[in-house]
Amino acid sequence: MSEWSIEDTTYMEEAIQLARQGLYTTHPNPRVGCVLVKEGNIIGRGFHLRAGEGHAEVNALKEAGDAARGATAYVTLEPCSHYGRTPPCAVGLIKAGVVRVVSAMQDPNPEVAGRGIQMLQHAGIDCSVGLLNAQSHDLNPGFIKRMETGMPWVRVKLAMSLDGRTAMQSGESQWITGTPARQDVQRLRARSAAIVTGIGSIQLDDSSLTVREAELGLDNAAEIVKQQPLRVVLDSTGQLSPAAKILQQPGRTLWVTSGEREMPHAQVLAAQQASDGRIDLHWLLRYLAATEQTNEVLVEAGAQLAGAFVEAGLVDELIVYMAPTLLGSDARPLLQLPLDKMAQQKRLIMTDLRQLGDDLRLTYRFDNNPESDVEEGSV
Amino acid sequence: MSEWSIEDTTYMEEAIQLARQGLYTTHPNPRVGCVLVKEGNIIGRGFHLRAGEGHAEVNALKEAGDAARGATAYVTLEPCSHYGRTPPCAVGLIKAGVVRVVSAMQDPNPEVAGRGIQMLQHAGIDCSVGLLNAQSHDLNPGFIKRMETGMPWVRVKLAMSLDGRTAMQSGESQWITGTPARQDVQRLRARSAAIVTGIGSIQLDDSSLTVREAELGLDNAAEIVKQQPLRVVLDSTGQLSPAAKILQQPGRTLWVTSGEREMPHAQVLAAQQASDGRIDLHWLLRYLAATEQTNEVLVEAGAQLAGAFVEAGLVDELIVYMAPTLLGSDARPLLQLPLDKMAQQKRLIMTDLRQLGDDLRLTYRFDNNPESDVEEGSV
Repeated sequence: MSEWSIEDTTYMEEAIQLARQGLYTTHPNPRVGCVLVKEGNIIGRGFHLRAGEGHAEVNALKEAGDAARGATAYVTLEPCSHYGRTPPCAVGLIKAGVVRVVSAMQDPNPEVAGRGIQMLQHAGIDCSVGLLNAQSHDLNPGFIKRMETGMPWVRVKLAMSLDGRTAMQSGESQWITGTPARQDVQRLRARSAAIVTGIGSIQLDDSSLTVREAELGLDNAAEIVKQQPLRVVLDSTGQLSPAAKILQQPGRTLWVTSGEREMPHAQVLAAQQASDGRIDLHWLLRYLAATEQTNEVLVEAGAQLAGAFVEAGLVDELIVYMAPTLLGSDARPLLQLPLDKMAQQKRLIMTDLRQLGDDLRLTYRFDNNPESDVEEGSV
Repeated sequence: MSEWSIEDTTYMEEAIQLARQGLYTTHPNPRVGCVLVKEGNIIGRGFHLRAGEGHAEVNALKEAGDAARGATAYVTLEPCSHYGRTPPCAVGLIKAGVVRVVSAMQDPNPEVAGRGIQMLQHAGIDCSVGLLNAQSHDLNPGFIKRMETGMPWVRVKLAMSLDGRTAMQSGESQWITGTPARQDVQRLRARSAAIVTGIGSIQLDDSSLTVREAELGLDNAAEIVKQQPLRVVLDSTGQLSPAAKILQQPGRTLWVTSGEREMPHAQVLAAQQASDGRIDLHWLLRYLAATEQTNEVLVEAGAQLAGAFVEAGLVDELIVYMAPTLLGSDARPLLQLPLDKMAQQKRLIMTDLRQLGDDLRLTYRFDNNPESDVEEGSV
């Protein structure tokens, strides 16, 4: 028997929908939604929009006003207990006279981690945690991972032909995916706090790596583009040209290179190198999480760098846009990933599949415990 | 305004379902279904099961008996007008007193091609053609193509990793797809009249290329496997070993090779060679259609031969089983298909997508009139 009713689930679903309204803007905070219910009526709705502005609970309480007394609060994340830019939400709920709080998950932030619930319980409020836990996790994969491990959530985005190719051998390339897939990439960028690329891609495509209002196709696009993701260029040998487009865009560019260098319109970060002389990707991700409070990183790079992330086991999600075309066997591979034996293959788990115009978007996580599916038999 | 009612459509859908019961057995005849309806009741159902046995109309009339007088017949293909192994179905319908005949499509067989409808109309029967035309076409792509062009319908089946690879560089391979995908391949074989492979695949895998009762997962599997598809081995230099498994199977093997050769358990066909010295694939397909009355051909071959079919523009359908794994950039390509320029890319149209266990099955046709989707813009 679950401790929650069907009505509880319905209200929490509403809270999760509300939280999604902050998908592109809460960074570095988590996306959170809150619904206040009394006598079967929703009397307040709130979500967190932007760091420094009201938390979900505060916004819902504001809408409910005095009616909050005796209400139940549904929150996608445990109410906070610490005095940050705003007073603790647990205190706000207590003061408002809420009698029951249902949370989807405990706050992974070590400054909270159960203390919010404790504060509420000490005030005599009926508390429960875990309703729609998985859905709440999916709202904040990056925030949760950063709080729990000090590392950001890493997505590698790739666009390929059916035969797994990205460009011709000569380097000739063009967009092989259609407009809906490219719009989707814009939204992936918009929800990310940082975009990581390599100097090779910049030299080949002279990419801007920005989020562009017209291409997002979202009502609040004008607000979203004000907060551009940090652009991170990995360039150990310092090839970046001061004329590169990526340096002429709104928002910040972080140039990760070696030695003492300077670059107009870029912040320079001295690279820590791994034993193979390449930039240490583990160090880079830890830096982004610690210094930039980066929750979600999007890797938009060529086969070399994307392959290096995969090889290092640093990828949480692989997002592949597959265009209905064949580029042929001489064309460039999806990932530079030299494997000799079948036993080294990287098994994946597909977590999402959708059609975007003529293209497919395939989302995978890495299968760390692949069961062998090898069987003997006649072909 | 359509000339058909919703009820007409429902009955034709039923007829199409019936026709599908002959999917694996009617070769070289088309799959056909028939429903007889009087006063809102279905009084007879029939489908064609096997060449030499009753046509769909005959079977439906047998079930209906005298009740057929005054009925409407829904047939997925124009009733035949010629005396073959059985008397013309048009005559049967006339004699039974059917008053209306709805056909999904005209028979592409030049011996019929409208004459069946003419016979019915001369007998005063109300005739219409074209209801659910596209669905009826899909029942018999091979029969229709062979009747219209003298060529069979060609499917190329490939199994690959997400990164478009089929085996390691060394040739090491194993089944990367799961059981449901392999069952699906069995059904693809079962509906095909011929399986074409190359000597390279035979030498690498020693494949049997048979339809196996236990793996089909169909009620009438025991019946289906009695009629094994013709196995066609392309081997211009005569490398086939008399010990190859493919020669020890029920059903026939056609060994297409050069010079005067003999092989136990195989029929030998002297290959016509194209200007590049390879076996002329166009000639081969025309031979299979003309001599073997082959409607549907399945190409199960390695990158070289599958690529040659694609390059020659002879492929009607590409069926790709995609396993959730990465085999890496050194692994073998999906198709040997050397292209230099983006302008040479082969655009496809996805016609079907389904999940089979952990794998995806993607079905494509070749897009012969690709509109340019190339746009200028910032990456």
